[in-house]
Amino acid sequence: MIIQPATRTLSVKEYYFSVKNKEMARLNAQRAQAGLDSIINLGIGSPDGTPPVEALQTVALEAVKDGVHGYQSYTGIPQLREAFAAWYKRYYNVELDPSCEIQPLTGSKEGILLISLTFLNKGDGVLVPDPGYPTYTSASNMAEARIIKYDLLEENGWYPDFDALEKMDLTGVKMMWTNYPGMPTGAQATKELYRKIVDFGRRHGILIVNDNPYSFIRTKEHLSILEVPGAKEGCLEMNSLSKAHNMAGWRLGMVAGQADYIREILKVKSQMDSGIFRPLQLAAVKALEAGEDWFEKLNAEYYRRAEVAYRIMDTIGATYDRNAAGLFVWGRLPDGLKGADVSDRLLYDAGVFITPGFIFGKNGENYIRISLCANVETLERALEKIKSL
Amino acid sequence: MIIQPATRTLSVKEYYFSVKNKEMARLNAQRAQAGLDSIINLGIGSPDGTPPVEALQTVALEAVKDGVHGYQSYTGIPQLREAFAAWYKRYYNVELDPSCEIQPLTGSKEGILLISLTFLNKGDGVLVPDPGYPTYTSASNMAEARIIKYDLLEENGWYPDFDALEKMDLTGVKMMWTNYPGMPTGAQATKELYRKIVDFGRRHGILIVNDNPYSFIRTKEHLSILEVPGAKEGCLEMNSLSKAHNMAGWRLGMVAGQADYIREILKVKSQMDSGIFRPLQLAAVKALEAGEDWFEKLNAEYYRRAEVAYRIMDTIGATYDRNAAGLFVWGRLPDGLKGADVSDRLLYDAGVFITPGFIFGKNGENYIRISLCANVETLERALEKIKSL
Repeated sequence: MIIQPATRTLSVKEYYFSVKNKEMARLNAQRAQAGLDSIINLGIGSPDGTPPVEALQTVALEAVKDGVHGYQSYTGIPQLREAFAAWYKRYYNVELDPSCEIQPLTGSKEGILLISLTFLNKGDGVLVPDPGYPTYTSASNMAEARIIKYDLLEENGWYPDFDALEKMDLTGVKMMWTNYPGMPTGAQATKELYRKIVDFGRRHGILIVNDNPYSFIRTKEHLSILEVPGAKEGCLEMNSLSKAHNMAGWRLGMVAGQADYIREILKVKSQMDSGIFRPLQLAAVKALEAGEDWFEKLNAEYYRRAEVAYRIMDTIGATYDRNAAGLFVWGRLPDGLKGADVSDRLLYDAGVFITPGFIFGKNGENYIRISLCANVETLERALEKIKSL
Repeated sequence: MIIQPATRTLSVKEYYFSVKNKEMARLNAQRAQAGLDSIINLGIGSPDGTPPVEALQTVALEAVKDGVHGYQSYTGIPQLREAFAAWYKRYYNVELDPSCEIQPLTGSKEGILLISLTFLNKGDGVLVPDPGYPTYTSASNMAEARIIKYDLLEENGWYPDFDALEKMDLTGVKMMWTNYPGMPTGAQATKELYRKIVDFGRRHGILIVNDNPYSFIRTKEHLSILEVPGAKEGCLEMNSLSKAHNMAGWRLGMVAGQADYIREILKVKSQMDSGIFRPLQLAAVKALEAGEDWFEKLNAEYYRRAEVAYRIMDTIGATYDRNAAGLFVWGRLPDGLKGADVSDRLLYDAGVFITPGFIFGKNGENYIRISLCANVETLERALEKIKSL
């Protein structure tokens, strides 16, 4: 290379699963030669189900039409913003003005970078949960912000310790990432928790960005931080169709909040990409109309899978919370065991990949995470392999 | 807002067309009340045609299947990388290793930000063409790079003046954007020009990024900078299906170059988004198989449209190059006339929107740009309106 990459990339490793997938491909080639079956991957949380049938029909009908293939507006089609608003009203009891309080996103992962670039100057402080989604950290690095991890601990129900937060040096802190139901912990918010977070942000002039893609999975209580009175003044919330509607690959998400913030985000977004393919937006409108029956069916399957995941955790000797929500079961290993070691042993000796908790932060080191994006039969095969170790 | 946006956003205005579209919506409302027809928009270059039918059939068939809705790999499916490689071999006579020299992109606009974040530190110099695509500037601002405009002038055939470049202070310059066939000028590269650019980059340790989305439009000579021997060491090239295959809204592009560079870009990309929806990737594979007959038909239409655009330019008194390529006709106004004034007069008095050249840089101030993304009938209506002024 005649020129070296920028400093901001030095802190960024290739995404963990990107590296791990290559390792598994190598191992699978060896296993095939040795006559062994492929590794069972219980790692990534990529829903394996099919989206609402109305969404599929819509994309198939719309994509073959004339006049739908040009660039789309950055703001998204009005129908999509209205559908997001109706969905927020119906399930979260939150009023959003579709004309100015909602910005569709090419998936909410894109939104994490977009929001970071919009609000964080080099050196600005950003509070990032530990354990938490690694992309909060890497997007903060892209913006060259100063990352300040805040602890989420099992003894606090994976909630922030507000006393500890208040004692931290919050000088220059501009933003805070929160995420409930939490990934990887599965901890669910309460209205009281959201009130405390909103209040904390308001008092310290810190923009709260709540990432809320899991609030339809293994839970009936759909909570939004924007439900707290006055929250929009200091909070943004991201949401997504990836998990709730089995549409992870489609790249459909949104950010909601006060018009002023949305306008700034749009300014940056309009420089970095273009609107979402119109047939996908129309399909998203249909998906967002899904009723409680859709979620009941979706969750019945995840609850069945979770039962097998609990038995895997039991076999390993890990403890877990049956009331947790989301796409994963998060298990605490017996004292003295590290997730990294357990994960490697399961991968090399049992041919089962389970994510070690350290990749979500130091507070995850004694944990492992089982994805529920594998069917019951697959999970049972993994259980048998682990039992026979 | 309790917190202010980051400094990097202050330099970024809302994208010009985003603002202009709102103005036109307002004017159209007034015109409707006054019984006038809507504004004829000859601004943005969003192809109005339909993609290759095989691509449409593929997305309609694939999107309704089970098992295609999860996250896709950041690297793109192998079939897509192989299709890009075959396309580069067939049309540009460039060999690319699909396993490591091609990175699919969610449109090449995304690629401009991605490459900027990957290679540019705060304060690093980046050479940006004037006139040129405004996104090179705004992405450089996102990376907080130091933007150094280099002149493209009609008297040099819109090529860089290499003597002038050599005399510039190139200290700390890491990257240079080039774009042929050029937007907005339509100037076509030659192998000789590409050799000079590659040589310039090599001698100064400057990474050349050539943006090449127009090389199938109103031209039969498909040139790639990567055809220059040794180019991959110091050059990247971006390409796209937006124009060549009428798939602007689909968001399908790529960047090609040496594996080292691609690996660094992938590192950043894996932090900021996810892979493209699989049915869209499979449709892209089909589109990339389009033969010369597809491009002949596509261009026959653009040549017909260009004839009307030339008559509009004649009516305005602007001069233009019949040998230019790409989606636009670029016209030089008579001395003393500014594109901004002419554009406003046409918008308010004739109800026709034509892009003023200043938005592409100071060297575009005396020019206007007509998009060929409107059919012959629409262009003729615009011509009549302008004639009757």
